[in-house]
Amino acid sequence: MSRTSRDQVSIDQPVLSKNDRIAAEVRKRLDAAGAYAVNLISSPGSGKTTLLEVLGRRLGDRLAVVVGDVQTRRDAERLSEAGVRAVQVETGGACHLSAKNVADVLDEVLGDRPPELLMIENVGNLVCPASFKLGAHMKAAMLSLPEGDDKVLKYPSIFRQSRVLVLSKIDLLPHMDFNVDRVVRECASLNEGCQTFCVSARTGEGMDALCAFLLERCAERATA
Amino acid sequence: MSRTSRDQVSIDQPVLSKNDRIAAEVRKRLDAAGAYAVNLISSPGSGKTTLLEVLGRRLGDRLAVVVGDVQTRRDAERLSEAGVRAVQVETGGACHLSAKNVADVLDEVLGDRPPELLMIENVGNLVCPASFKLGAHMKAAMLSLPEGDDKVLKYPSIFRQSRVLVLSKIDLLPHMDFNVDRVVRECASLNEGCQTFCVSARTGEGMDALCAFLLERCAERATA
Repeated sequence: MSRTSRDQVSIDQPVLSKNDRIAAEVRKRLDAAGAYAVNLISSPGSGKTTLLEVLGRRLGDRLAVVVGDVQTRRDAERLSEAGVRAVQVETGGACHLSAKNVADVLDEVLGDRPPELLMIENVGNLVCPASFKLGAHMKAAMLSLPEGDDKVLKYPSIFRQSRVLVLSKIDLLPHMDFNVDRVVRECASLNEGCQTFCVSARTGEGMDALCAFLLERCAERATA
Repeated sequence: MSRTSRDQVSIDQPVLSKNDRIAAEVRKRLDAAGAYAVNLISSPGSGKTTLLEVLGRRLGDRLAVVVGDVQTRRDAERLSEAGVRAVQVETGGACHLSAKNVADVLDEVLGDRPPELLMIENVGNLVCPASFKLGAHMKAAMLSLPEGDDKVLKYPSIFRQSRVLVLSKIDLLPHMDFNVDRVVRECASLNEGCQTFCVSARTGEGMDALCAFLLERCAERATA
């Protein structure tokens, strides 16, 4: 078998479009169940699971979560302890969730009484998850203050694609040299429609606005 | 052309071994130049560039840096402003450095008077960089306190492969619920020989020990 770059393209493409096909099926199943899904993407440690714990305390049964990790089931256990309906996906080494990962657990997470909002916590990684559709209705990028205010243009793909930018650990702002305006401005330069929420899971700052925004999206979807 | 999983393996393998071949060439060139190279891997925002600025102030001409980023040349500019010999590699979307990325800039970064220590700052990503040899003499994993103390078992591959674990932003310890012992214990469970350095680029804590350790490795190499 010859191994030209043309061969590589012809092999890669079916893999990508297979993911897109499964993502389209996931979307159909979500829509049929009346669930609005968000693909939440950030670096490791920016506070995805903690944010979801707080959302879970506010939304109760209206929320369910799919948690992706390279390895371990810790995040789903944390969320379940906080009373959140959560299903873990271990990618077994892969650095991102695929649509198949989501499809495989969708019946379990939607259950008999599907949630209004399904948050899909992607693997902690600012690069690769941006390239794989999951069937969600929007991507949300999360950036925590300790990561620094220079990350938007360094990892542009995810910020370009996200409907929402969540700036987390905002309670640390007085202790850090972090320019919120710079981040918002650089994000807008890539993606004019992206809406920023500054939140702290610790103090609760900004959580009302983020919750309200997500529930509005669920309601819009239900009436669309 | 049939697309069985066997085909996929037979196509992937030459790609990997091509990277390994280039990595072996990089290693030869480093050894010929008398430079000891470290592949530094962490999440975005854990403080790689800041650490290298501090190392640069201490080591002067003895240090050079290759900086990998998905996009932008900011980190090399920051390092050059701090007086560090730094060459930027933009991966153009790839989520990790490859051996070829390093090989392509090696002449430039080694120059006429090669450094004793070459730090290769990988793309900010705790997953994918672990899978690509660069020809360096060791991998160093870096984890900053704000990322949380649960990351070792969630991203085991890089911690399993690293000779050194750098716990950065250690000055934040009094303000965080971060268990250093847990991280060290979980890292040892994967990788008994891994040595931990707790550092703060801001206060300078731990930088003497880390510097001394790296220079010892350079000296060992020179006399081996």
